Amino acid sequence: MTLTDRLSALPTPSLVLDEKIMLANIARLRDRPELAGIALRPHLKTAKSVDVARRLLTNGTGPATVSTLREAEVFFESGIRDILYAVGIAPQKLARVIDLIKAGCDLTVLLDSMEQAQAVVDASRASGVSIPALLEVDSDGHRSGLPPASPSLIAIGRVLHDGGGLLRGVLTHAGESYGVAGAGAHAAFAEQERSAAVTAADNLRQAGLPCPIVSVGSTPTAHAARNLAGVTEVRAGVYIFFDLVMAGIGVCRTDDIALSVLTTVIGHQAARGWIMVDAGWMALSRDRGTANQAVDQGYGLVCDDHGKIIPDLIVTAANQEHGIIALRPGSDRPLPDLPVGTRLRILPNHACATAGQFGAYQVIPAQADAPLSQWSRFGGW
Amino acid sequence: MTLTDRLSALPTPSLVLDEKIMLANIARLRDRPELAGIALRPHLKTAKSVDVARRLLTNGTGPATVSTLREAEVFFESGIRDILYAVGIAPQKLARVIDLIKAGCDLTVLLDSMEQAQAVVDASRASGVSIPALLEVDSDGHRSGLPPASPSLIAIGRVLHDGGGLLRGVLTHAGESYGVAGAGAHAAFAEQERSAAVTAADNLRQAGLPCPIVSVGSTPTAHAARNLAGVTEVRAGVYIFFDLVMAGIGVCRTDDIALSVLTTVIGHQAARGWIMVDAGWMALSRDRGTANQAVDQGYGLVCDDHGKIIPDLIVTAANQEHGIIALRPGSDRPLPDLPVGTRLRILPNHACATAGQFGAYQVIPAQADAPLSQWSRFGGW
Repeated sequence: MTLTDRLSALPTPSLVLDEKIMLANIARLRDRPELAGIALRPHLKTAKSVDVARRLLTNGTGPATVSTLREAEVFFESGIRDILYAVGIAPQKLARVIDLIKAGCDLTVLLDSMEQAQAVVDASRASGVSIPALLEVDSDGHRSGLPPASPSLIAIGRVLHDGGGLLRGVLTHAGESYGVAGAGAHAAFAEQERSAAVTAADNLRQAGLPCPIVSVGSTPTAHAARNLAGVTEVRAGVYIFFDLVMAGIGVCRTDDIALSVLTTVIGHQAARGWIMVDAGWMALSRDRGTANQAVDQGYGLVCDDHGKIIPDLIVTAANQEHGIIALRPGSDRPLPDLPVGTRLRILPNHACATAGQFGAYQVIPAQADAPLSQWSRFGGW
Repeated sequence: MTLTDRLSALPTPSLVLDEKIMLANIARLRDRPELAGIALRPHLKTAKSVDVARRLLTNGTGPATVSTLREAEVFFESGIRDILYAVGIAPQKLARVIDLIKAGCDLTVLLDSMEQAQAVVDASRASGVSIPALLEVDSDGHRSGLPPASPSLIAIGRVLHDGGGLLRGVLTHAGESYGVAGAGAHAAFAEQERSAAVTAADNLRQAGLPCPIVSVGSTPTAHAARNLAGVTEVRAGVYIFFDLVMAGIGVCRTDDIALSVLTTVIGHQAARGWIMVDAGWMALSRDRGTANQAVDQGYGLVCDDHGKIIPDLIVTAANQEHGIIALRPGSDRPLPDLPVGTRLRILPNHACATAGQFGAYQVIPAQADAPLSQWSRFGGW
């Protein structure tokens, strides 16, 4: 059965995942010689799927990173044991954290303030359950975390340590690395991550505090890091699927993008050069992550149903359930003839955002000609 | 029990719906004297909730508008009978349309091409089920539809009519009305909608074709239309909740926004004037619909947990599960003191997009001091 035939049975819009490409992306990072001897702690927020996690964490138990407690709960239920919840902890969430730890999950929380540390210590004491925590270090001004040389890191670390040995280490994330292009620029951010995390860890140790974990990472820096001395683990998430934002900054090629939205042509506005499809922003997401890149891909790059890019064709606008496909501004190509009913696939700007709009992956299996599989994914908090 | 106490039991982020505000919004449009004698066909794509639909369609059976066949199926199952699927029909979707009609749903499809009309005629013949259709008219160049004076409208209408009496009328939607501010500008778009739809209907009738339905609408035009002569039904959707985009163009006040995202403060970057919360774009959506309005609201306007706006405070940036709250650029107010653990509510740019990120509404009931309700919502296609 041809791929066209297999895909034609799907309703549109559907979220299509090419397993073979995904497995190659997983192997690419796993096999980087620079990561030898360092734990890889993949971020599961992109996939939110037990089926994907099984192919990513081949031992089945972790380590893994999550962005919500719901992810921690679902993945723990599936057998993953070593989980880092890498968003600053709200005191109100500690009851769920304690329940997970009591059930046997090795769950670590993240924090960057004395208030949070005190809440973690108090909750640990009150429950009799030790809640391990990492201190968040800010390496690039992107969002949360304390500067690596901040005396507050030591003060907070001491509260955690004295509160029952809850200090597990430090973490940083170079979110700003998404804004620069090229392996050289990403390697510089990787060194900035490493340097910030190692500096913070050294400061803690010099103050007599333990710091077994030194965690760094983002997809661009994980793929470009040259020196990881002093780092104990690397995190990355979107690399399993990749997307146009990552292609736009040179971390992958468009051929490495494993995710696409299958859509159907539902009309034309010939005078305006528009092809209307049934994938609007409810399917593609509102993410316009390539808007400020060298090449703006609109709401996504258009491929035929086999995933072959149709040159210069992008989704230029999106309503809730309508996408408008047109030639890229400045293109001198003719608009291709794509009659009503034609199936197309749209490569997403941002895999995390687009996947989040769907309840399942329609999987093209790695083994040729096998029937499509469906892998469920979850959302919520 | 205070509202603060009732909301404090919710996890964050959660989607909060103020039923009293919603009911006032529903009544406001329903009671417009300009709509007397004209059917109101609310769009259910914003709510995607049977509980909301019950409060909107008080007779329980319609008329209603939907944007996906999944909406049609779920709402038909809940008892709604008269449903318009207002996105151009893909031939591949006709099997599901036929199943709904066979089950007793009065489902109408939309189209603007001969290919679609022929597919509808063929499917009707093959199944023995009449699939009624509206012709989409383009009144403002926004997306789909044929110009009102297009001879193609008559040619396509004739194919539908001759194919078993499948022509039910015409439809237009002034999507461009979202881009202008003020009741005067919206009234001008309403007249453009009316004029385009009535012209198309007259042309069909002069060609000897029936045109019982003349359907117009969008939230801005439905609230501003002064003359609806010749129109048989008006559609609108987002008005039940309203949002910052609608407030920005003067269709509502910020006090009329029924929907908000409950979030918790998880940290601070005092030197940068940032307050970090646990509502990122996965909760708020990536919609930046106010970006090009007179007042850019970032990813949303910040309120206290009672829904009272905190002046000049907006979500200036969003990562997947982090929101960054800061003062609006140019504000000379001091940053309010909002400690870790503080609960806030964020008014959304675009209610359809933000609601789409959640699986349920946490409802503040219209009757004072009643416990919160939970109304489920669905997604998918």
